[in-house]
Order: sequence, then C-alpha cells, then structure tokens
Amino acid sequence: MPVISEKGKAMPASPIRKLVPYAEEAKRKGRTVYHLNIGQPDIPTPEVALDALRNIGMNIIEYSHSAGNESYRKKLAGYYHRLGIEIAPSQILITTGGSEAIMFGLMVCFNPGEEIIIPEPFYANYNGYATAAGVKITPITSYIKDDFRLPPIKEIEAHITPKTKGIVICNPNNPTGYLYSEEEFLQLRDIIKKYDMYLFADESYREFCYDGEKHFSALNLKDVDDNIILLDSVSKRYSECGVRIGALITRNSAVINTAIKFAQARLSPPGLGQIAGEASVDVPDSYFTNVNAEYTARRNYLVKALNGIPGVYCPNPKGAFYAVVRLPIDDGDRFAQWLLEEFEYKNRTVMVAPGSGFYSTPGLGKNEIRIAYVLKIDDLKNAITVLEEALKVYPGRILE
Amino acid sequence: MPVISEKGKAMPASPIRKLVPYAEEAKRKGRTVYHLNIGQPDIPTPEVALDALRNIGMNIIEYSHSAGNESYRKKLAGYYHRLGIEIAPSQILITTGGSEAIMFGLMVCFNPGEEIIIPEPFYANYNGYATAAGVKITPITSYIKDDFRLPPIKEIEAHITPKTKGIVICNPNNPTGYLYSEEEFLQLRDIIKKYDMYLFADESYREFCYDGEKHFSALNLKDVDDNIILLDSVSKRYSECGVRIGALITRNSAVINTAIKFAQARLSPPGLGQIAGEASVDVPDSYFTNVNAEYTARRNYLVKALNGIPGVYCPNPKGAFYAVVRLPIDDGDRFAQWLLEEFEYKNRTVMVAPGSGFYSTPGLGKNEIRIAYVLKIDDLKNAITVLEEALKVYPGRILE
Repeated sequence: MPVISEKGKAMPASPIRKLVPYAEEAKRKGRTVYHLNIGQPDIPTPEVALDALRNIGMNIIEYSHSAGNESYRKKLAGYYHRLGIEIAPSQILITTGGSEAIMFGLMVCFNPGEEIIIPEPFYANYNGYATAAGVKITPITSYIKDDFRLPPIKEIEAHITPKTKGIVICNPNNPTGYLYSEEEFLQLRDIIKKYDMYLFADESYREFCYDGEKHFSALNLKDVDDNIILLDSVSKRYSECGVRIGALITRNSAVINTAIKFAQARLSPPGLGQIAGEASVDVPDSYFTNVNAEYTARRNYLVKALNGIPGVYCPNPKGAFYAVVRLPIDDGDRFAQWLLEEFEYKNRTVMVAPGSGFYSTPGLGKNEIRIAYVLKIDDLKNAITVLEEALKVYPGRILE
Repeated sequence: MPVISEKGKAMPASPIRKLVPYAEEAKRKGRTVYHLNIGQPDIPTPEVALDALRNIGMNIIEYSHSAGNESYRKKLAGYYHRLGIEIAPSQILITTGGSEAIMFGLMVCFNPGEEIIIPEPFYANYNGYATAAGVKITPITSYIKDDFRLPPIKEIEAHITPKTKGIVICNPNNPTGYLYSEEEFLQLRDIIKKYDMYLFADESYREFCYDGEKHFSALNLKDVDDNIILLDSVSKRYSECGVRIGALITRNSAVINTAIKFAQARLSPPGLGQIAGEASVDVPDSYFTNVNAEYTARRNYLVKALNGIPGVYCPNPKGAFYAVVRLPIDDGDRFAQWLLEEFEYKNRTVMVAPGSGFYSTPGLGKNEIRIAYVLKIDDLKNAITVLEEALKVYPGRILE
C-alpha cells in the first residue's frame, strides 16, 4: 500500500471531533444535547442574503474572478471605509472562508520550518493550517487570571528566534473572547517593526464587541502597511458559516499579488456565497445592534451563572461569543466525554470543547473548557444547570 | 519589508492571465472577443439546481459536515453506482471544487520533494497545486501526431525515480480532449502496482464522451483499491463552475481519513454549492444527451473547419470540450497577444490559450493553442473565421 505523507500523519485531528460519536450516542438514547462546543451561531442569516439567493437571476453559475467579484470587493471597501479602515478593492482578495485566507497567508509569507508566534489558548484550526504550510507555531501563554490579555511584550520578544517571521492575533479572540486594546496593538506594532515580521490579524469577530468597547483594527496601525495581513470572514458577522466566504486584505502589494497566484490556481471563490456576502453588506446597523444586545444578555447571564457555581471561574469577555472557563476538574477531555457518555440531568446533557485543544504547551488548559454562547438564553440556562449538576457528581472533581 | 516565501515566488501565474488586459483593451475598443480560451461552458445550469437555490428553506446558512452533507454523499454514491462505479458515501469527501480535491490529494499522498508523473500537455493549474504542495512534476510528452494518446509505458517507466510516488491522468483530457481507453488504464495499473504508486484520476469531464465512446473510470481497475484517488467536480458536468463543489474519492481508508483531517481544518465545503450539486444529481439523462449532441456538433464543425485552413492541424478529440490545435505560427503566446492587441476582422477577434502553458518541457507547444468549444456554433463559426483570416496576415506565420 502506498504511504501517507509526513504532513498527513502530522495533521492534527479536530479535538472536538473525537467527542462527536459520544454526542450522537447520547442523542440516540433520547437525550437533549446542548451544543456549547461549536461557534455556529443560532442567529438567523440576514434576509437580504437569503433573498438574493431566492432571486438568483443567472442561468449559468459561472466562475467568478479569482480574486472575487469586483462588485463585491468594491462594496467591501465601502464597508471597511465606514468602519474607518481605508482599503482599496485591489487590496482585497476574496477567499473560500477565513480558512483559505489563513492558508494563503501562511503559504505566501512563510517558508516551511519558519516560526510564527501565537498567544495561547488559540483557535485550534491554526494548528491544521500551520501543519499544511509546514510552519511551526510558537505559543506564548496568556492566563485566565489576566482575562487572557496579551502576554508581556518581553515574554513575546524572548521567544523570537532567527526563524520567527510573524505573529498571529485573533481579535476579538476565539476561544477566550478577549478584546485586544489599541495599546496592546501598539506594542505589537513596535515589535513587528523592530523585527520586520508579519502581523496576521484575524478579525472574524470584529462586530462582536460588548459594553461599548470599540474594536481596533490592525490595519489602522501606522507605518507598518507592508507587515499587516488582515484575515476576515462573513461566517460569524452575518451568521453565514456555510457560504465559505472570507478575505485576505493587505496593503502589501507583493503579498496580494502572490496570494492571487494561489487564488488563480483554485480558479475562484464560491460564487453563490459571494452573492450572499455581497447582499449582506447592505444589512442595516440595527441587525448588529440586535445581535449584540442578544449576545450581551447571554454573556451577562453566562458569566454570572458560571461564577455562581462553586469552584468555577469565568472571566467577563468583551468580544466574540466564547468564554474559556476554569472548572474544578482533573481533565477537560475526560470531563467532556463523561458528560456525553455517562451524565444526564432531566435527560439533558451538554457538549463542551475541552480547553487543552486550544493550547500548544502540553498540560495546559486541562481544567478549562471553552463555551460558545450560541444558544438562546432559555437553552443556555438549561445547559448551565446541567453543568452545575454535573460538577457535583463528576468523579474527577478536584476539591479546593 | 518582510519577504515573500520561496513557494510564493515559485508559484506560477496563470498563463492566460497575462492576456486578460489585452482582451479588456480590445473590448474597450468596441471589438467582439470570442473566448475560446477558458473552460467555462455556455450550457445552462440545470433548472433543478437553480430551483433548489430559489426555494432555499433554511434561515441560517450553517456549516455542513467537513466531509460534505451526508445526504449529498449518499446521492453521489447512487450516481456512481448508476455508472457502474461502486463506492460508499464514507469513501467520498466533498471538496471546494476539484481544485481542493487535487490539493488535499497531493498533500496527503506526497512529501515535499517527491515526484509525480503527468503526461504533457496537461492542465496548467496542476503546476500551481504541485508548487503549493512542494511536489515536482515529471512531464512525459504526448504528441499531437498520436492524438495525444498515453505515451509508451516504457517511456513512463524510464522516468520513474526513487522519488516518484504517483501518476496523474485527466480523463477525458484537458487540454487535449483525448479519451484514455481501458487498455491504456490497464497498462497504468500494471505500473502503479509494480511501483506501489498512487494513480490520481481527474474525471471532471466524465460525461463528455463522443462518438459512442464509453468512459472507463480508474476506480474500476482491479486489485489497486489503495492506489486509486479519484478527483471529481460538478463544474463541467452541470455547468456549475461557480459553485465550487468537487470530490476526492478513494477506497484507501488511510487516505480518506487523512484527507478528512485537512477538511476539518477548513471546516466545511460550500453549503450553497452542495445544495446545487445535490439537486443536480437528479438531472434527467436527457440533459446529458442534449449537451453531448451540442458538443458533438460543435466539435465536428470545429475539427472540419480547422483542418480546412492551410497549415492547421486539429485532431478529432473524443471527449471533454477542448482541442489542442497545431498552427503555422512561431509562438502561440505572441500569436494570442497579437490577436487581441493588433488584429480584428469585421471588428471581431478571438482569445485563445497558448499551447506552451500546458507543457512543462521548455520549448514545447509553441506552435499549438488550446481551443475550448464552449460557444454556440454560430459564434464558433465567427471565431474560426477570425482565426483563418488572422493566420493569413500574422507576421510570425511559418510557411511550410
């Protein structure tokens, strides 16, 4: 039998994936499983997007431009302008989800064997993209006691080697919900300037900022135009995870022109998704006002409820719709499986994402889980009640 | 300024891309440009697919399963069964176009620095995927005088080195339109068995076989289940290039399970495209009967008309909707540019794909072009008339 590549063997499986059979088995037993494990919002996709699909006028679904439809890129430039981000349509490459934007960015900017720094915990799929591109991730730990703010810049600098070529920041952060401040970005700017590194800014959750906090875009850092690569996605913004539309945006013309060669090889981004994405740019501000009010209410409930459970600590995240929560448990992987396999309360259970999957450093995050508050408050209440009851009887509970 | 990766620098630009500004300029001058250069069919997308989109029932466009919707994979298994290809839904991975199927296949099966053999001329984008995966293409030349049939198997075997791990065959072939026979596949089978290599079979044009010829699928080769990787796409089959839906199919469970890890990293294939693709499986046979009758008529016209032009030779391709044509010219790149930049006949001109872009061996294909017969016969007639008139006055004409 011919062999699998080294890269294929090294490719990490999704850490949540191994829990799926247990969730399916729980459902087969007739249990309600509350999914706190996945960033699939329950917010309806804007009607303008669905209408654009219902009224599809074409009779041939043709290739689009490799960089995405020009009409869409022009509208997107307007969207960014309204947010105070000045970018030209030619500096936007429409990608197949944010995933492809990250993939293209890694392939264009880094050689195999080079290193990128990412504060951990971080979005687990970065591991997959890095493996595919042959790039090594150097994790710098951020801590729940600090609300997962940027690690001290000296700590970051201490990990820079001659092979380090970039830093990746997801803002607001998945999985922590942490919203990086302008001050933190100014520190990052100094360091990427000093070492002439790339700063990849994953801003897929830009619209999801709470408590009146403002989002600061990496594209608004001064004098580092050639260093900033913005990664974006409509998946969360418009609850359009399935359309697979994202963007790679940069003022670095060498990067965009090289990324376009990768884009040409795969011909074009999804055409139907671009129709939805383009229509969504016209969504009224009230859409986001309502969505943010909903998420704020959920977060407020979640943080309060979790901190009311003995031994549990949940920071108060300012963005995205995730929280990394500390539990009085031995091992989040074991706990997550036990919840699905052995526990039920009123015939209900929950699926959570074990914290360890978001850390590169072995051993970290074992007493943490990530919760995505993508459920309506009534469901969220039931889910947290399940969690509270579960912690009372979980055999691996750590007494403090 | 931070540097571009070696891979990025090596990434080939699309050979047709550099002609685009000339085509745009010709259109600005008011000229009709007949596009014989691109495999974008003018055949309407099946109504069942468009209707499925118009009647879209969901109110959230969610992630699909990373391997594609199970309902779609089940229907696809039925589609292959009707063609005499036995495959289980679990052996099908839905990809973002055939492009991603090739990319995943290369990443899963080959290490950087390893070699794959491809008969040339070949689909130019294989160069891009190979560069992205760090794989080296070893071209084995096929010749227009032989209708571009498989090169002698001894010639292929002579190019196998310890680093050679696979062979890629596109059947029917883009760019030549050549339809490989079962006999040729049996020869390939012997060699992949002997060397325990992978055989990648790109069958995106499976439905487009003419003159009563039958398509032979590589999946029907015996005793090499672990070696065969099928790459498929709905782009041409249903005139759905823009939906970006393809598939990687194999009975090799290690390959499919590894490919799924890559698929998980990018979350899911396009959801809307899957709706179109799944609906299209129900297209009646009459759809293909009509489409094939149309392409056969076009090909018959094209082959006859081209061979009637002094100094021109066009084989009679049995499949796909391309022909590689030999012209009495010095350089196809120069000719293609000249057509757009300097020539017009009755205010019309044509855009063709220079042959050299489909060869890896330097210098080959300079007197060849690829023609995609994706225009209605009346337009095709006008386009060929333009070509005939152009050859009379092209300064780089070679007199025989």
